[in-house]
Amino acid sequence: MSVKPLILVSNDDGITSPGISQLIECMKELGDVIVVAPDKPQSAMGHAITINEPIRITKVDIHHGVQAWQCTGTPVDCVKLAIDRLLPRKPDLMVSGINHGSNSSINVIYSGTMSAAVEAAIDGMKAIGFSLGDFSWDADFGPVMPYVKSIAEKTLRNELPYGSLLNVNIPKGEIKGVKICRQAVARWKEEFEERTDPFGRKYYWMTGKFVNMDHGDDTDEWALANGYISVVPTMFDLTDHQRIGVINNWGLHD
Amino acid sequence: MSVKPLILVSNDDGITSPGISQLIECMKELGDVIVVAPDKPQSAMGHAITINEPIRITKVDIHHGVQAWQCTGTPVDCVKLAIDRLLPRKPDLMVSGINHGSNSSINVIYSGTMSAAVEAAIDGMKAIGFSLGDFSWDADFGPVMPYVKSIAEKTLRNELPYGSLLNVNIPKGEIKGVKICRQAVARWKEEFEERTDPFGRKYYWMTGKFVNMDHGDDTDEWALANGYISVVPTMFDLTDHQRIGVINNWGLHD
Repeated sequence: MSVKPLILVSNDDGITSPGISQLIECMKELGDVIVVAPDKPQSAMGHAITINEPIRITKVDIHHGVQAWQCTGTPVDCVKLAIDRLLPRKPDLMVSGINHGSNSSINVIYSGTMSAAVEAAIDGMKAIGFSLGDFSWDADFGPVMPYVKSIAEKTLRNELPYGSLLNVNIPKGEIKGVKICRQAVARWKEEFEERTDPFGRKYYWMTGKFVNMDHGDDTDEWALANGYISVVPTMFDLTDHQRIGVINNWGLHD
Repeated sequence: MSVKPLILVSNDDGITSPGISQLIECMKELGDVIVVAPDKPQSAMGHAITINEPIRITKVDIHHGVQAWQCTGTPVDCVKLAIDRLLPRKPDLMVSGINHGSNSSINVIYSGTMSAAVEAAIDGMKAIGFSLGDFSWDADFGPVMPYVKSIAEKTLRNELPYGSLLNVNIPKGEIKGVKICRQAVARWKEEFEERTDPFGRKYYWMTGKFVNMDHGDDTDEWALANGYISVVPTMFDLTDHQRIGVINNWGLHD
């Protein structure tokens, strides 16, 4: 008798978001699902963890009989708490999302969605972050779901060595196919908007302009702009191995 | 007439921490210093940014005439706001720290100190995160400062291409020298401590045990355990380039 895969689901938009509901329904077709997700939006939390205050969890029954907990912490907290307290065994797969908004190129580093998946990978799970390039709460996930299911299925079936996970971004509109890509070299140009509060004090809203500095046709930005789903193999070893030799010649030892 | 280097200083322990004071005093010997740092401790904030609420800044005169602002945001917010609103030109160097506590191996990903430096690097600055392996507010920075100055000086003098920055960790106690290292393969084993509040509800404190899975003698953990300062060239391209070819064979396109 074969055991069904165990799949942990989280996100950063919060446990009531349409994107996580879609992901849960899809994962139910592949295995047994456990959900641990933030009780409120936690976008752009990066890899933040909660160490200065306690964390609470509450079991909720909002996903049609699927075991689910909402958590007061960050997306990374959710994964850590799931591992230590809520999961019966190590999951065969962890999926995060589906995020309302893209997490391509440099956005991977700010993204709570991807940080939950990165944390799962650090803990030795196969992990995938899914994001849709549409911020709307009413985004149409219908055409997207066969791709999400297929990518999750193939990830369960194939080897993904320790250190690697997948960052999957899905363009809005018609989908032409799937491309395996590298992260484009891109950044945000900061544009803080200054306002004055009713008491005469200044405050700032962070806004910015996305700048793609990369003209390659092998990047996630290229794939998305051309109607393809981008799959970027992502890693959490931040060592710039190539640079070790060069910096050895700086004379830092002297 | 040569212009003095412009140096941006930030951290995650907050603008009143002893570690940032030491770093500011040291950087004054190398150039003109501008400080933009959190107004409260922001440890373990990772690469979080503040998008759901406004950010405030206040000019403060607590660092002996050095231009300094405290900011309500995260370490990454501080760097972004500095670039858009406070700096007269792009700094020649950005330094973050000195953190009270180590940010070696996997800790780089949770660290607000390193995330401030990573953000500066994304924005095209030479950047260094400095951390001392001593959590005490009364840690003795004295023996450490000549090394900090020398590493900053040599970073100003040498080429550091776009995409790279330095993660510098300093051991507590006697220092034998400096090693250029890779990040050790390590992780935290979660151990949430369960408590009950006065109203009978459970809550959890995140704790954990550090597990070094790496036996190499070229890692930062090895260097620190053997009395050396570790310098890890760090990058923010998270693409696992090696894996692209393999995943192309998974049939995700079908």
